[in-house]
Amino acid sequence: MDLSKFRGVIPPVIIPLKADRSLDLPAFELTINRMIEAGVHGLFFLGSSGEVAFVTDAERKQILTEAIAIVDHRVPVLVGVIDIETNRVIDQVKRVSKYDVDALVATAPFYALGGPYENERHFRQIRKCTDLPLFAYDLPVSVHTKLDGNMLMALGEDGVIQGVKDSSGDDVAFRWLLLENEDAGHPMQLLTGHEVVVDGAYLGGADGSVPGLANVDPHSYVEQWNAAQAGDWEKVARIQDHLARLMMMTRRITSTVGFGAGVGSFKTALWQMGVFNTNQMREPVQALIEDDVASIAEILRQQDMIDPALPLREGWE
Amino acid sequence: MDLSKFRGVIPPVIIPLKADRSLDLPAFELTINRMIEAGVHGLFFLGSSGEVAFVTDAERKQILTEAIAIVDHRVPVLVGVIDIETNRVIDQVKRVSKYDVDALVATAPFYALGGPYENERHFRQIRKCTDLPLFAYDLPVSVHTKLDGNMLMALGEDGVIQGVKDSSGDDVAFRWLLLENEDAGHPMQLLTGHEVVVDGAYLGGADGSVPGLANVDPHSYVEQWNAAQAGDWEKVARIQDHLARLMMMTRRITSTVGFGAGVGSFKTALWQMGVFNTNQMREPVQALIEDDVASIAEILRQQDMIDPALPLREGWE
Amino acid sequence: MDLSKFRGVIPPVIIPLKADRSLDLPAFELTINRMIEAGVHGLFFLGSSGEVAFVTDAERKQILTEAIAIVDHRVPVLVGVIDIETNRVIDQVKRVSKYDVDALVATAPFYALGGPYENERHFRQIRKCTDLPLFAYDLPVSVHTKLDGNMLMALGEDGVIQGVKDSSGDDVAFRWLLLENEDAGHPMQLLTGHEVVVDGAYLGGADGSVPGLANVDPHSYVEQWNAAQAGDWEKVARIQDHLARLMMMTRRITSTVGFGAGVGSFKTALWQMGVFNTNQMREPVQALIEDDVASIAEILRQQDMIDPALPLREGWE
Amino acid sequence: MDLSKFRGVIPPVIIPLKADRSLDLPAFELTINRMIEAGVHGLFFLGSSGEVAFVTDAERKQILTEAIAIVDHRVPVLVGVIDIETNRVIDQVKRVSKYDVDALVATAPFYALGGPYENERHFRQIRKCTDLPLFAYDLPVSVHTKLDGNMLMALGEDGVIQGVKDSSGDDVAFRWLLLENEDAGHPMQLLTGHEVVVDGAYLGGADGSVPGLANVDPHSYVEQWNAAQAGDWEKVARIQDHLARLMMMTRRITSTVGFGAGVGSFKTALWQMGVFNTNQMREPVQALIEDDVASIAEILRQQDMIDPALPLREGWE
Repeated sequence: MDLSKFRGVIPPVIIPLKADRSLDLPAFELTINRMIEAGVHGLFFLGSSGEVAFVTDAERKQILTEAIAIVDHRVPVLVGVIDIETNRVIDQVKRVSKYDVDALVATAPFYALGGPYENERHFRQIRKCTDLPLFAYDLPVSVHTKLDGNMLMALGEDGVIQGVKDSSGDDVAFRWLLLENEDAGHPMQLLTGHEVVVDGAYLGGADGSVPGLANVDPHSYVEQWNAAQAGDWEKVARIQDHLARLMMMTRRITSTVGFGAGVGSFKTALWQMGVFNTNQMREPVQALIEDDVASIAEILRQQDMIDPALPLREGWE
Repeated sequence: MDLSKFRGVIPPVIIPLKADRSLDLPAFELTINRMIEAGVHGLFFLGSSGEVAFVTDAERKQILTEAIAIVDHRVPVLVGVIDIETNRVIDQVKRVSKYDVDALVATAPFYALGGPYENERHFRQIRKCTDLPLFAYDLPVSVHTKLDGNMLMALGEDGVIQGVKDSSGDDVAFRWLLLENEDAGHPMQLLTGHEVVVDGAYLGGADGSVPGLANVDPHSYVEQWNAAQAGDWEKVARIQDHLARLMMMTRRITSTVGFGAGVGSFKTALWQMGVFNTNQMREPVQALIEDDVASIAEILRQQDMIDPALPLREGWE
Repeated sequence: MDLSKFRGVIPPVIIPLKADRSLDLPAFELTINRMIEAGVHGLFFLGSSGEVAFVTDAERKQILTEAIAIVDHRVPVLVGVIDIETNRVIDQVKRVSKYDVDALVATAPFYALGGPYENERHFRQIRKCTDLPLFAYDLPVSVHTKLDGNMLMALGEDGVIQGVKDSSGDDVAFRWLLLENEDAGHPMQLLTGHEVVVDGAYLGGADGSVPGLANVDPHSYVEQWNAAQAGDWEKVARIQDHLARLMMMTRRITSTVGFGAGVGSFKTALWQMGVFNTNQMREPVQALIEDDVASIAEILRQQDMIDPALPLREGWE
Repeated sequence: MDLSKFRGVIPPVIIPLKADRSLDLPAFELTINRMIEAGVHGLFFLGSSGEVAFVTDAERKQILTEAIAIVDHRVPVLVGVIDIETNRVIDQVKRVSKYDVDALVATAPFYALGGPYENERHFRQIRKCTDLPLFAYDLPVSVHTKLDGNMLMALGEDGVIQGVKDSSGDDVAFRWLLLENEDAGHPMQLLTGHEVVVDGAYLGGADGSVPGLANVDPHSYVEQWNAAQAGDWEKVARIQDHLARLMMMTRRITSTVGFGAGVGSFKTALWQMGVFNTNQMREPVQALIEDDVASIAEILRQQDMIDPALPLREGWE
């Protein structure tokens, strides 16, 4: 497989909803086009930020069908096949494989407790059911397991996985993985899931990033990647400082925690910026309101992401 | 709703598999009949021990269809509608509701991080989609959230949930819930998920138990319940001591951890006792072998669960 | 060693302070005498509830000296030798051993991360430095390690430890320990640290309890122990229900969390009941105020612990 | 206070022991001089790596006295005042303040559970007892609390703390702290406790590092700092790659976990390199042996830290 196309900035696509919580197709088209036109190198659908956990299989199908039509081969499409355990993930692989997608992304099993043996066998069983490139998604905050570096290397060298999306926050383990992957001839594309310390990951040799915040500011992430490719590390860090300040929008949320605060902030920013028509969320999560919206808009203004003269958007049309 | 039938010993049914990992229907019939004939007061299908996490929706349907046919209204049937987030759970509710089941069992959302607000709204949204009795399944080891006692009481008093299956291991919170449920007029049936300290839960006023180990020794759990009803607490404790010793089978496992060790032990015991034809597990979990099988058989012999003269079953026919 | 005296209700003694945060000696005498006169079977000083973490070595010495003088051999005195790692604990053992105490209580090492090997060696090294009975204190909430049951049994059978104070909340592991200790000829006295499910622990065969709440209501805990000895389990459970309701005082605290809420509630109750002159805490913890005090007083009234006609005590004389 | 001297590479000093576990004074002098001659910008004694948890107060005094004499004002000396809760820490502050030290380093309270209110008050109470610069030591792996960024900023702006040693592994929070500290006029010196991703921390603007591995290879950490000051980020990253590979020595340990594996590896490396005379540890930790020693030596050879022709040191003279 040629893996070189899985490189650079690959945002996990945030889903715009109408007030009735159904997919807002025009806004979906707008946000995808906006990211592609900014120069992103791929798009990741049905990830954690892409509401994969919150939607039914029918809704997953709708999102994927529309996404593929909109992207229309302009950039590679990675798709999450997130489900609870191996057989259910393989079920998702079968559904997704009917579409023209470029790679699959799977976590370790969750809910039913296992150990390292089960984690490794899980990925090996998935590999038997597909010829598509497969990325292991390391997301302990959701999966409650940190993928072991030795296991990842074994899976990479055996051709089971072709990459890792590392959202573990364990930058030490990620650095070691970068070094060992290099020693093994680079069988995997290693992508950081960070928003705030992407500069350090690039300096350490990461092949790219999957930042949710790139939905809000794709241009800066693309510019940062280009600066890293050019070796202009001061510029990489300066852009990172801007993005780190922008990411503070997720720290100020007072009305809820977790997904509703994180992805809820991104949706609110995209709504205030006019990309989305609402900041609506899927059940059982509620949209951010009032003070939380105001504090996000304030950060957008400080970071020159919206015209400071424009009023706060306060209701959904 | 009349909730009085959700009372006593309600085992979560362990699933017998053939060597090829498909449902072993004759053994399924045998184990269900064995528990009903021992006097259990209900059966819980598609719970965590019932492999709900490991099977596809098609396999869930098969298990449920066969289960309902075998039980044939002899005892109430509770069914897990376990899935990642609200909309997916509601999808499961719709599927299960086509069958003649007596109650549904749902956990809080998992995978996507939320907070107390989302947990409460989740159960309220499920209630809108069904008229069946609904049990909240408190299982932090899988769900990574402890259901808050105040929330459970509010849901119970509002008629959203009709009971709790408490597998939290937090016996203090459970005792408080028992007291507060009593004060509120007993709107909920409160069942402990313990195997080893069920005696304490009964002494504190629990309405019943959901012990996985009751698949192995349903007679003792039924006898224990009857002794508790009769107020013979010394007998309740003596039976508990036997069951606690039997449960030690899960402590000695050396080849894996988690589900494979826990439910894997129960399957191995049922296989050694001749109820199951294998101790096969669902992918990616492997069946226990060799020393683990031998140590389980040894405990079964010590606790008079199998004839000490019989040889170890070593292979699957 | 004769361990039979370490049996029954052994409260961890809560420390009364003056407004200036120094030891309130008259109140200390009053609370100790009140518990002894209620019939408690021992007293545990310098435990977690006894502020061992919060006081200097000089203050530990003062507390211990006064405690021994007040108790004056009426009941056995257990003393915590809590410190970070082995050598520091041994230092505490040497200090405490100068006094006429009946047993020592030590946790596993904390702060510096270790493993099972270090935990076991820790207790064995302490044993080399003292001939006094030694209790292992299982308190994962502070020590962040659950003491392994197999290790405890080995230490017990080798004469390293003579008992366990189990505040792990893991009632399953405790039940197994009770059974295995019995099988081994009862080398250890096994005490539960629970307040709320002591009835279950007694039914399972515990040798006693170490409930902080016994500072507030020693009479009920003694009465409960006596009922358990007499096999009157309905009475044991009825008393437990009262004590569980009383313990709800710690659930309602809104101004802080952890020690300040837990021991802070007990101090506030003792102050409202006239046993303590303040509910003052050691730095950096602050005394509970206003709503928290009122809700504790309300629970005391509901549980007949104070005269409902008496006004709330609102300031310290 | 002039804080500019707390900048650059400030290793936490690892303690060499004789076989009888007492301080090896000649080796202590050798390792300190070796680091100072390599150009380190300060030394941190009685930190976690410096065995503060494992030694008695008398031993702390010995270490500190000897350290100050050996350093003899060549570089700033930072000293840990680690103890369980506020009053005990203040006791340590009083002891340490008798010596000619440049700054104190304190963690949040541990063992007794508190909350954010107690953490903040703790540092404020310490400040009242000393005029020395105070660093907050953020070490959740030991303290089980992550120091909140807002609290740290408030303490910094109020002059309570003059810096942070961040060993939290939370690089996102650290980046935000760097930005907010800059916005506030740089009241604090912010040091990363990382060994493996120090390059990212420098790129983000950290004032220095406190890497335990700098005991083993102080020259590379100093060279890395100088390259960062010169803006040669490719060189910073290349040196980091070497140090990351060297740090792999701590990953391969099979005989224990935690401190014994981490600091045990550093001691073993220093022993193999001839700086230490043993790799002895404090009770209850045991020295690494056999395969663990061999794998550490192998990594040292691969990274050109020892002459590949030299035999493995296998016993202590």
